[in-house]
Amino acid sequence: MGIRVAVAGASGYAGGELLRLLAGHPEFDLVAATAHSQAGTHVTTVHPQLAGLDLVLGATDAASLSDADLVFLALPHGQSAALAAQLPDSVKIVDLGADFRLRDAALWERYYGGAHAGTWTYGLPELPGRRELIAASSRVANTGCYAATITLALAPLIAAGVADPADVVVVASSGTSGAGRSAKVNLLASEVMGDLSPYKVGAHQHVPEIKQATGATSLSMTPVLAPMPRGILATVTARAVGDADPREVLLAAYGNEAFVHVLPEGSWPHTAATAGSNSCHLQATVDVDSGRIIVVSALDNLGKGAAGQAVQCANLMSGLPETMGLSVFGVAP
Amino acid sequence: MGIRVAVAGASGYAGGELLRLLAGHPEFDLVAATAHSQAGTHVTTVHPQLAGLDLVLGATDAASLSDADLVFLALPHGQSAALAAQLPDSVKIVDLGADFRLRDAALWERYYGGAHAGTWTYGLPELPGRRELIAASSRVANTGCYAATITLALAPLIAAGVADPADVVVVASSGTSGAGRSAKVNLLASEVMGDLSPYKVGAHQHVPEIKQATGATSLSMTPVLAPMPRGILATVTARAVGDADPREVLLAAYGNEAFVHVLPEGSWPHTAATAGSNSCHLQATVDVDSGRIIVVSALDNLGKGAAGQAVQCANLMSGLPETMGLSVFGVAP
Amino acid sequence: MGIRVAVAGASGYAGGELLRLLAGHPEFDLVAATAHSQAGTHVTTVHPQLAGLDLVLGATDAASLSDADLVFLALPHGQSAALAAQLPDSVKIVDLGADFRLRDAALWERYYGGAHAGTWTYGLPELPGRRELIAASSRVANTGCYAATITLALAPLIAAGVADPADVVVVASSGTSGAGRSAKVNLLASEVMGDLSPYKVGAHQHVPEIKQATGATSLSMTPVLAPMPRGILATVTARAVGDADPREVLLAAYGNEAFVHVLPEGSWPHTAATAGSNSCHLQATVDVDSGRIIVVSALDNLGKGAAGQAVQCANLMSGLPETMGLSVFGVAP
Amino acid sequence: MGIRVAVAGASGYAGGELLRLLAGHPEFDLVAATAHSQAGTHVTTVHPQLAGLDLVLGATDAASLSDADLVFLALPHGQSAALAAQLPDSVKIVDLGADFRLRDAALWERYYGGAHAGTWTYGLPELPGRRELIAASSRVANTGCYAATITLALAPLIAAGVADPADVVVVASSGTSGAGRSAKVNLLASEVMGDLSPYKVGAHQHVPEIKQATGATSLSMTPVLAPMPRGILATVTARAVGDADPREVLLAAYGNEAFVHVLPEGSWPHTAATAGSNSCHLQATVDVDSGRIIVVSALDNLGKGAAGQAVQCANLMSGLPETMGLSVFGVAP
Repeated sequence: MGIRVAVAGASGYAGGELLRLLAGHPEFDLVAATAHSQAGTHVTTVHPQLAGLDLVLGATDAASLSDADLVFLALPHGQSAALAAQLPDSVKIVDLGADFRLRDAALWERYYGGAHAGTWTYGLPELPGRRELIAASSRVANTGCYAATITLALAPLIAAGVADPADVVVVASSGTSGAGRSAKVNLLASEVMGDLSPYKVGAHQHVPEIKQATGATSLSMTPVLAPMPRGILATVTARAVGDADPREVLLAAYGNEAFVHVLPEGSWPHTAATAGSNSCHLQATVDVDSGRIIVVSALDNLGKGAAGQAVQCANLMSGLPETMGLSVFGVAP
Repeated sequence: MGIRVAVAGASGYAGGELLRLLAGHPEFDLVAATAHSQAGTHVTTVHPQLAGLDLVLGATDAASLSDADLVFLALPHGQSAALAAQLPDSVKIVDLGADFRLRDAALWERYYGGAHAGTWTYGLPELPGRRELIAASSRVANTGCYAATITLALAPLIAAGVADPADVVVVASSGTSGAGRSAKVNLLASEVMGDLSPYKVGAHQHVPEIKQATGATSLSMTPVLAPMPRGILATVTARAVGDADPREVLLAAYGNEAFVHVLPEGSWPHTAATAGSNSCHLQATVDVDSGRIIVVSALDNLGKGAAGQAVQCANLMSGLPETMGLSVFGVAP
Repeated sequence: MGIRVAVAGASGYAGGELLRLLAGHPEFDLVAATAHSQAGTHVTTVHPQLAGLDLVLGATDAASLSDADLVFLALPHGQSAALAAQLPDSVKIVDLGADFRLRDAALWERYYGGAHAGTWTYGLPELPGRRELIAASSRVANTGCYAATITLALAPLIAAGVADPADVVVVASSGTSGAGRSAKVNLLASEVMGDLSPYKVGAHQHVPEIKQATGATSLSMTPVLAPMPRGILATVTARAVGDADPREVLLAAYGNEAFVHVLPEGSWPHTAATAGSNSCHLQATVDVDSGRIIVVSALDNLGKGAAGQAVQCANLMSGLPETMGLSVFGVAP
Repeated sequence: MGIRVAVAGASGYAGGELLRLLAGHPEFDLVAATAHSQAGTHVTTVHPQLAGLDLVLGATDAASLSDADLVFLALPHGQSAALAAQLPDSVKIVDLGADFRLRDAALWERYYGGAHAGTWTYGLPELPGRRELIAASSRVANTGCYAATITLALAPLIAAGVADPADVVVVASSGTSGAGRSAKVNLLASEVMGDLSPYKVGAHQHVPEIKQATGATSLSMTPVLAPMPRGILATVTARAVGDADPREVLLAAYGNEAFVHVLPEGSWPHTAATAGSNSCHLQATVDVDSGRIIVVSALDNLGKGAAGQAVQCANLMSGLPETMGLSVFGVAP
């Protein structure tokens, strides 16, 4: 018999992707999934792509989760702490929300508002020394989707001293599932198809998380909504320090990783190649005019940017092979 | 050690999907993949979504395939016979092309041109009695993508005598991967996005295959190219014979199938829910004005419509569980 | 000084397209536009594509429209009658809603519910004798978007006796703007992109309108939502009566029309070619297997299917050249 | 009788958009359009959106253009000079290619290769003093599409001394029509839909043009191909000099312009709002973390980025109202 897992907040896009991954996982037994307004609904009404999975969504409360050894929280920001407090210490938790990511309570309050819930182990296994921390934790804060994309591109360069942490400029575009499943006019297909639309310009809430995870001290990040359901493409530029080859630094950092791929020279990451997978693709160069380092990073915001990363952390926390139940390969075209 | 498999014609979209499925299959060992102009190229150059798979494409000839116990042919129509003739009888073959699907040589010549290569076991396991035939065969002709979509919707209704085989009208729309990977102006993204475009109106080559597989005697089928990479949605209408509930007929036919799902009443199939899976979704009703039966069928043209179906057949031919290495669940959104 | 026009219900997609056309019309002066919840908002907040147009949305009531010689109603179905009743007889009205399209009150109640408001001149100028009726009317009911697409394809064939009115089967796919601008989960970009989704299968409310306009006596129509913002592609099939060439019938009907184009032989209509225009593209053939007539019809659901058609009618009602302020040419790619 | 105009290179996307604009222009009479491999073809075969325009494409040579008072060249880079040399001095020319944009021959050779053809009046009317220069010229080099987008955002800020010309970082995404109409696998719809793909990272050929037009001395520009047919969205960031409000600087520069709109505070440009128009939308802010200026600029790459801009220049060169035949309003959704 496997490890019993549950998903709180299963009606959204990250929740649906978690269900897909968990229903196919060799060692995790999906015992419960919960929702708010959709409680009592069969899961296939909410997620028709899961036709064949027989499960009714429960209410989002501790009782619904009481059979689980490990719980994934995929709740709106600010709602994880209250539910987590009701779960026994023996239950492991991976929180896909932002509540426990930041160490600095003041930054939390500035960017998210409300009281800071606390700080859990930050769940990005490919950072140095971090997979051991995750494996030893019973509470893990999964990364933000932009944060995962950008941190994987930037952290090794700052750590190696080849990128100036005081001059980082990022533009990152995301597919619409990153904006959630709320019915909003600006997210309607009619508005989005054929359109690129920036938002939260100059003030995105992932900025402090990325600075914390990478050591950047100044970060301009502009997010753009792109007409595709999944995927994030981040263009990360930083002033070069010295003349090291940034690609070599990335290769040294990720040469042995299963999910982070520094592409062959001349190949640039693009989002479709990562769709449905837990992989992140990277490439780097130096701009011929400005001399800035440019790293491009691509991943699936619901995969390595959310649900896939959460399963990867859960595998580590459960003593399972880190890659179990996750796909290295994207579904393309 | 597993069963050694190879893919001839791996540079196209169906070939790429086969590689993805085979690379993750528990019992098949992918030992070779071949291409024509791309021979000698690393597979990730052609299929960046397979980053992490270390394989160089070989030439499309018998020598490249000599280590395989089972070979998938994903070649342009008309090229399978010559290569198949060079493979030993002991090697099992699944042909994804049209060459061996039709029993009637005259129809082959009318719709495809050239000489008819022969007839192999038709590879649609969910037709009555067919999975046993497939399991006993060493040569299987995989279904066409439109044919799979429409046959699954129509065959049980004609077999049960509730749909008139002499009056079938179908309109089916396909994502662009169904049109292949050739560089043609009409398939450019600039032309396709925001566009619906009919083609081969009144004369599609899958018509005789569908008639053969379903028993229809008159079939009007209009194919439409839709602005999405994957998926086929077929609206299959037929004059009703008697007043049986067509949904009940489908439920009776597919109630125990892993991959064919008759949706709950009120839910209609849509393509995105099947993307990346080997599932086909069905729903049926009777039109209030005309009294015609309407069945809507959706699947992934590269999944149940091509590569997934081929792996399902290969599982049967190899004595493996039919569902091995295939996903019931779609990747959505 | 020109003819003063106003738009009631300007916050939706058809309303926005009306504003675009009217703001560029040489003889119509746009004097007012109204909305419900958006009343008091600057028009560019609601329609950013109209940047440069200085207009504040008024409340949807007779007072807001009192300066207009001609009023366009782009209101939800069922709301036109109450407002129309408050406008003086001297004010001309084009209703883009369904309220006044049907002659048969019982059919109205069956398909739309509620009481039938009445019957106005049906606004499809290319039907025989109709542009004179429209020119003589002060109240015109604009066509439904599906109805325009299908009627233009079918009416001449039934009138000429070459298509059997008792056996018509239509599948028509529409871009998402046809579904309106309400915030609904099923219309979110994440759900729609990469997806084809049928709806109201076997029971669409345009069926009685199309039967009334074409003379069809049995009509099966399946609508499909397609992943594009604009455009309708209808595949209209009917049992052939005799062996007349359906394309010749269409050429005879539309040879002198500015906006209805029977394409050269071998060219098939596709929606993108009509985007932003008031044109409808048609082509016809006879199916080689079934002998059925197949007509494909494409137009812009917001153009010839709604706002463009309304302006065309308004031109006729105002004694202006029928094509004034309308584009024959599509915006493509 | 109007001014006779012709388009050399009318089979591509910019050429098609030129034909659409010219066919609807009140004062320009379209007398000829030419193509290379498509010479002799009816224009609607190449551009089905122009159904209703009766014109056969001629060969691309001086004879085909001999009736024109003004010629638009929409040829591949490097081919304009040879044809221009064959046209009499009395014929006005607007070149949509890059051949005559750069003043510095060495930069031309570095970024484009081959010999530098010369330098014509740079055709961006909204730059200070430039519309008078254009009006006085008989040879105008139209801007590049990225260059127009970025220059309109950046030039006033550098001119006003509020943005550091030595530290400009741009990421700009373009719809696929910007990549032209050549049949290439990487531009297939199957590859592009659902995908964001960077290209020419760190070395785009518009960089010297933008530096020349804006005064920037260091410019990192990363272009990204986006899954939409039209539109460019540029995120332009620069280190702030002083604490002036960048939005006020843009308002001062463009307050009286018909086609350049600084949006209301809180509204950000998005590409769909500019589709089919000759407008550019701008907004600016200062990043809260880094203090960098961020300007977002959106336009239609075929409109203000190519054909629309060319017509605007031609209007000026012909003594016509600058806005004639051009739309301020976008076609949306």
